Amino acid sequence: MPDILPPDCVGLVTAKTSKFDKTPLSLDCGRSLSSYELVYETYGTLNKDHSNAILICHALSSDHHAAGYYSMQDKKPGWWESCIGPGKPIDTNRFFVVCPNNLGGCKGSTGPNSTNPDTNKPYGPDFPIITVRDWVKSQARLADMLGISQWLAVIGGSLGGMQALQWAIDYPKHLRNCVIIAAAPKLTAQNIAFNEVARQAILTDPDFHDGHYYQYNTVPKQGLMLARMLGHITYLSEASMRDKFGRELREGKLNFGFDVEFQVESYLRYQGRSFVDRFDANTYLLMTKALDYFDPAKEHDNSLSKALTNVMAKFLVISFTSDWRFSSARSREMVKALLDNKKDVSYTEVTSHDGHDAFLMPIPHFIQVFKAYMQNTE
Amino acid sequence: MPDILPPDCVGLVTAKTSKFDKTPLSLDCGRSLSSYELVYETYGTLNKDHSNAILICHALSSDHHAAGYYSMQDKKPGWWESCIGPGKPIDTNRFFVVCPNNLGGCKGSTGPNSTNPDTNKPYGPDFPIITVRDWVKSQARLADMLGISQWLAVIGGSLGGMQALQWAIDYPKHLRNCVIIAAAPKLTAQNIAFNEVARQAILTDPDFHDGHYYQYNTVPKQGLMLARMLGHITYLSEASMRDKFGRELREGKLNFGFDVEFQVESYLRYQGRSFVDRFDANTYLLMTKALDYFDPAKEHDNSLSKALTNVMAKFLVISFTSDWRFSSARSREMVKALLDNKKDVSYTEVTSHDGHDAFLMPIPHFIQVFKAYMQNTE
Repeated sequence: MPDILPPDCVGLVTAKTSKFDKTPLSLDCGRSLSSYELVYETYGTLNKDHSNAILICHALSSDHHAAGYYSMQDKKPGWWESCIGPGKPIDTNRFFVVCPNNLGGCKGSTGPNSTNPDTNKPYGPDFPIITVRDWVKSQARLADMLGISQWLAVIGGSLGGMQALQWAIDYPKHLRNCVIIAAAPKLTAQNIAFNEVARQAILTDPDFHDGHYYQYNTVPKQGLMLARMLGHITYLSEASMRDKFGRELREGKLNFGFDVEFQVESYLRYQGRSFVDRFDANTYLLMTKALDYFDPAKEHDNSLSKALTNVMAKFLVISFTSDWRFSSARSREMVKALLDNKKDVSYTEVTSHDGHDAFLMPIPHFIQVFKAYMQNTE
Repeated sequence: MPDILPPDCVGLVTAKTSKFDKTPLSLDCGRSLSSYELVYETYGTLNKDHSNAILICHALSSDHHAAGYYSMQDKKPGWWESCIGPGKPIDTNRFFVVCPNNLGGCKGSTGPNSTNPDTNKPYGPDFPIITVRDWVKSQARLADMLGISQWLAVIGGSLGGMQALQWAIDYPKHLRNCVIIAAAPKLTAQNIAFNEVARQAILTDPDFHDGHYYQYNTVPKQGLMLARMLGHITYLSEASMRDKFGRELREGKLNFGFDVEFQVESYLRYQGRSFVDRFDANTYLLMTKALDYFDPAKEHDNSLSKALTNVMAKFLVISFTSDWRFSSARSREMVKALLDNKKDVSYTEVTSHDGHDAFLMPIPHFIQVFKAYMQNTE
């Protein structure tokens, strides 16, 4: 809880909600949503000609609360406080920033825990599987509603970076800059394998009840906890885990039992347990599927270069040396495909021990590069 | 099922069991076992002066069935068929090979699913936590019983390599060669983290019943399946997963549901399910703890060099380029500590795409180096 908000903070913020029910949203899965709501936050001021708007796309377990505090009692600011605010890379003195919670989410936008108007019960497993392209389409409607015909930039890290790339492909005229951080043009078999173990943990939890757990007043705690613990291992690098925990024992000695012994166990269990209180298992399942399915090259003879032929935005691509979830090699695939098409792309590999989570950290080199790029945007 | 056994196979084998009940085996945890059995297999013939005996130590989920077939109807040979047999690196024309199932195992040696003589019920969670040092101590008694005062070599891959290293430290005069393959001198925080997720999957399975599941005629299927799925990801390299599965879809198209879609999902679920039928969850828990606890440097001011001062064996250390569970850097830590002490050590890093599992594969360079070393042993 901050006593006084720092001068580079956007301050106290409130979320807004918009309803979209004029035209059904047709989805990649073949189904459509006749009506849906998106909850979002905005920071900064939209200028007269609506040319300073930036869209932030969030990652797997994030939401629309990207910056600032809800109240002076809040313990934590939004998830990208390091990058959004006055004087920061996404400078709210200059930009009007929009961050929605994704469709299928669990923080206010329509998702599995929302009421299905057809049944008056929560959607649960009947909520359609959403793709990155579906998200982009739903975000385009939000842009229309806000009167933003072209984003100054669409920006995202991890799964958010995939959305930014999809924006550049699907709506080439509707963004001038595209910033893709710690992402990949598609998942590897290993990435999918980790997602599958996480999903199986949830799906086989007896409290999952085929996704109808809301009706049983329970949640698949065990499964969601395991999914999160596993996720956390892939967000950190081996080096950062060594630096943070090493082989430190919580009580200084081995106990020859299965209670927490090593500090790293304690950390993971805490992360797993606290996630259960703030995230919905059905949403977690949906988000991992969106990751697995993302593969814009697929419809273009598996050629990413072909998929990017028509993009018009300028690109900034950033990767981190110790990110083994989406390694620098994956970012370079995107850079190469853009260069194949003679597109305008800047690429930086930031040296960091923080693994995939580096994109959430105030790493000086990262902030510097990001800020310099954004300062030069028009 | 082989129609005719190949000439480089040890042929049909049978397991033997020995009981040890003269002196209680005192364990690192402070408890002791007054009586225990070890099941083991032997291949080749012990020579007159008992100088050609080799001990094979097995890894996490293996057992004493390292080579040959139990019957002509068997579909698969023992787990190290690639390395044990006439003319192979562990040449049964020359060596007498002993491979026991570790104490705490579930394939015949005394373990959690054995009857506790004090209660006439399965030990279950009351079976003591066993360390690598305890295993070595129990194997030394087996050596005594077999009349083997000095092994020509103690050999192991992964957790088996850790046992080989511990042998060299604890019984320096009782082995002339020590072969350590795809191992590490201790686990990293990331290694422990993966083990902890696997353990939590088992411990939080409602069918685990605090380890007393035998009494409930059930097994913690879901937890053990998840543990195995996760393990498998760490045994393979990203490259081998890409080569094996890529992003291939089992039915050629996306189904927008949570059934198996990608081939890698199908593979992992199969591995997970089949493991449940052949392995005991309490044993899995014990094995992961033995891994976590292994750290011979700890009692020597965290100096591996100091821990290895008194070893007398010659060493062969082998690692594999794509093994990210126990990377080559971890093998080099052991090599360096041995060189610090001016010990006789050969080290080879084998180029391979097969990840940690490479030590089980018939990789020509690996087999060649291993064979050449063994041919020169005395």
